[in-house]
Amino acid sequence: MSRNRRPIRSGMGRSTPERIFVQGLDLARDIIGTLNFGDMAYLELTGRLPDARQSRVFNAILVTLVEHGMTPMAIVARLTYLGAPESLQSAVAAGLCGMGTTFAGTAEGAARMLESAWAATPEGSPEELARGVVADFRNRRQSVPGIGHNLHKPVDPRTGRLFQVAAEEGYSGRYVDLMRAIGQEAEAVYGKSLPVNATGAIGALCCELGISWRAARGIAVMGRAVGLVGHLVEEQAHPVAAEIWLRTEEEAGEHDTPPAGGRQGG
Amino acid sequence: MSRNRRPIRSGMGRSTPERIFVQGLDLARDIIGTLNFGDMAYLELTGRLPDARQSRVFNAILVTLVEHGMTPMAIVARLTYLGAPESLQSAVAAGLCGMGTTFAGTAEGAARMLESAWAATPEGSPEELARGVVADFRNRRQSVPGIGHNLHKPVDPRTGRLFQVAAEEGYSGRYVDLMRAIGQEAEAVYGKSLPVNATGAIGALCCELGISWRAARGIAVMGRAVGLVGHLVEEQAHPVAAEIWLRTEEEAGEHDTPPAGGRQGG
Amino acid sequence: MSRNRRPIRSGMGRSTPERIFVQGLDLARDIIGTLNFGDMAYLELTGRLPDARQSRVFNAILVTLVEHGMTPMAIVARLTYLGAPESLQSAVAAGLCGMGTTFAGTAEGAARMLESAWAATPEGSPEELARGVVADFRNRRQSVPGIGHNLHKPVDPRTGRLFQVAAEEGYSGRYVDLMRAIGQEAEAVYGKSLPVNATGAIGALCCELGISWRAARGIAVMGRAVGLVGHLVEEQAHPVAAEIWLRTEEEAGEHDTPPAGGRQGG
Amino acid sequence: MSRNRRPIRSGMGRSTPERIFVQGLDLARDIIGTLNFGDMAYLELTGRLPDARQSRVFNAILVTLVEHGMTPMAIVARLTYLGAPESLQSAVAAGLCGMGTTFAGTAEGAARMLESAWAATPEGSPEELARGVVADFRNRRQSVPGIGHNLHKPVDPRTGRLFQVAAEEGYSGRYVDLMRAIGQEAEAVYGKSLPVNATGAIGALCCELGISWRAARGIAVMGRAVGLVGHLVEEQAHPVAAEIWLRTEEEAGEHDTPPAGGRQGG
Repeated sequence: MSRNRRPIRSGMGRSTPERIFVQGLDLARDIIGTLNFGDMAYLELTGRLPDARQSRVFNAILVTLVEHGMTPMAIVARLTYLGAPESLQSAVAAGLCGMGTTFAGTAEGAARMLESAWAATPEGSPEELARGVVADFRNRRQSVPGIGHNLHKPVDPRTGRLFQVAAEEGYSGRYVDLMRAIGQEAEAVYGKSLPVNATGAIGALCCELGISWRAARGIAVMGRAVGLVGHLVEEQAHPVAAEIWLRTEEEAGEHDTPPAGGRQGG
Repeated sequence: MSRNRRPIRSGMGRSTPERIFVQGLDLARDIIGTLNFGDMAYLELTGRLPDARQSRVFNAILVTLVEHGMTPMAIVARLTYLGAPESLQSAVAAGLCGMGTTFAGTAEGAARMLESAWAATPEGSPEELARGVVADFRNRRQSVPGIGHNLHKPVDPRTGRLFQVAAEEGYSGRYVDLMRAIGQEAEAVYGKSLPVNATGAIGALCCELGISWRAARGIAVMGRAVGLVGHLVEEQAHPVAAEIWLRTEEEAGEHDTPPAGGRQGG
Repeated sequence: MSRNRRPIRSGMGRSTPERIFVQGLDLARDIIGTLNFGDMAYLELTGRLPDARQSRVFNAILVTLVEHGMTPMAIVARLTYLGAPESLQSAVAAGLCGMGTTFAGTAEGAARMLESAWAATPEGSPEELARGVVADFRNRRQSVPGIGHNLHKPVDPRTGRLFQVAAEEGYSGRYVDLMRAIGQEAEAVYGKSLPVNATGAIGALCCELGISWRAARGIAVMGRAVGLVGHLVEEQAHPVAAEIWLRTEEEAGEHDTPPAGGRQGG
Repeated sequence: MSRNRRPIRSGMGRSTPERIFVQGLDLARDIIGTLNFGDMAYLELTGRLPDARQSRVFNAILVTLVEHGMTPMAIVARLTYLGAPESLQSAVAAGLCGMGTTFAGTAEGAARMLESAWAATPEGSPEELARGVVADFRNRRQSVPGIGHNLHKPVDPRTGRLFQVAAEEGYSGRYVDLMRAIGQEAEAVYGKSLPVNATGAIGALCCELGISWRAARGIAVMGRAVGLVGHLVEEQAHPVAAEIWLRTEEEAGEHDTPPAGGRQGG
């Protein structure tokens, strides 16, 4: 075998008969009964314990991401549980699979945008950077991540609260400033209401906490996994999946003919 | 259509342009900046806010479930991320799919066992109930859930800490008593070390908090989802998936002949 | 390290620069252009090529399993694709997760039932064995797998055709006889129409082909994966997922109050 | 509610008590015993039955995609089955989740490239179009899909056979010509061996059959799902997942210290 083997290493956790270590901490002594679930998530992501201020900001991000009502992902989890009630974990998994570019990814995109802009022009002002960022997205005919919302306008109620919490804890810095400036610049350029939305605020707060944009989608997944379990527990007590299925099947099968037009091929 | 339609209802969350409601609470006013991630998980599961004592016990359960080192689920998440780095959510989903009967389900089984035993014999003593429970499992040739551990013996370090936290918060009641009695009875009957393990302790604490065994696997899924995201963030910085794959592929392909014996069919 | 390492072996496939071997055959020379997709599936499952008779029976099984209209699994795949159109594979994966005990597993159960019955009483008659089998399931208060159907009664149209194809190819033997006898016995015992359904016929034909019941669910997964891809290609041209989602979300959010009664916890 | 409801329609399949229709055909009369599994896949994708020539080409594509040895996806399916042996379908699902941009997508990319090139310049010659295509990818610093292979060089053994089958059946037209020309142009421009690989050949053959590039990934998913079931059936008889897991866990946990350098955050 000519390939050089590389070692397999991980610092996430290991065990001895008497002790369990997680991120170098003793699980029984240092974590259980001491950390809340959000702090534990922070420890898993960063390898470090949050201080009280980081804890409050990070927990605020996480709780914002948990519940969004009857989303496609929640419906998917419920329908999957209908088919496989013995595998609640697979129902959550199926739901998470739908957390793709349509509904997620904008917190990630916002964090990346803010990180890149300050990295490229560390001496600029938020207003200068915002002009460049909005012009760039416009030239590429892409929408600016983290601004605008179908329902929540002219203001996303989560944004103000997230920024307030960050300010209270000393984490309202240049990323928050830039995110706000981008929202204002975009409103001026596009001539319509484009408030910073929750994902824009979360992207900015991740940057303030020093969390890379590469981890931002992971934070969203953590939150949504909790929310999907919540939907499945409601489904156990008040099932709706069978009704959603039957209505869909009945209507889809009402007509002899397929949808107009063909699909593929020759 | 002769089928009676049933309504589709959910109390998980809903939105107006100005406000977002989760479990009847105002997300911006009542939740963000106020609740930690574990309290939010409790709210999603139960529809109620935990008090400070419930919060500490429930968060202790959750943080125990997050990280178990390089499990099959963690390896699965990493290998899936290698193939689909654009879909971190699918890598977590793939990992969760493996949380089945081999590694999970015992917290659920322990909670169910404890719930059923007290429901059937509310006036018994823990020792009496334990004798019946252990005899039942023995007769069915099934292992008793929540006791014994391959590595952590004679004591699981998480169990003592979880029971201590529960006692400090006034949640060490008859379910904890029964779980302990079952461990002692099983050790006497089987003549070997069978300490209450972490899943037994968690099952007992879920019962103490009034959370049904049907939700216990969901709590484990919440915890593990956070842990799998942690592994993927480590994988981003310190990848091991390609090495695991290449070693396996090389060794599996070293020999011309398939494993001895056939597989299926005629 | 005291653990004995075990070797990692596989006979599924391997490559050299010039050639690719699958199940010991040369992919380019022996498989491409020669085998149809069903024969390839047979080769993957059994490690052997089917003869013409086995090929016809096995392909008949597979094509029966592909399409069942707008099932929960098909809806799940479509809703997941709505959220993550960049990951068609994850939409199929999400759909497959719902192929659990509610809708699947009966072909597996039927094959296992037939395999066990003949293994235990190789000298019996189908009628004798059927009496024992039906009595056993009745005593355990379990439903007999492979018989009865909500919609297709008094006859499942697939069953007669599958049994006909098997007879034409010389694969209508004692497993088919026993499956038929079980249907008749059950109708007599329960006093209602309980025809052998498609999963019962498929279970019997798997046994006739010498395929273990352990592989039967895998055959169903192969078929359904093809069907779910079909639904996603229809969804690309004629989308319905957004409409299913919006109707569900609108109705679920119409009311201020959650479903009557609580859910969990204290 | 002011939103206009849109109808929910599907032509995939529907049932009456006596009959089951798939794509407008009668399942029992027209499909079972008549179509092979590859023809059924073609019917699901296109809504039409293939003729004998289309059938041979399409089945050749499918069987090429089934088995690739011990890939990350196969390892994932096996490890997931280790954790959840009760849910074979979830193990296949987990495996499919890894079929992302790293290993898949090039058949799709090749088909899209060929479709676009001929659509934009229907009167050109393959050589002219190839020059433009290769220059475009080079300018965008992207690799040309469908050419080159780490192991199979200077020739991918599948390509010649796939093109031969297409030629025998009258489906070697301008898309095959263009794919070949692109391979030659790229070898000239980049000065190294860049043979048309199997995904390039498959992309070209999809175009020849009139199947849109949007469906190409779906064809790959169909094939791979069959292959993953095959790996799980081998795993049932000759398990390797536990060994892969234990070796990885042992090596990852050998050292007290995490990998050098931190991960995230402040």
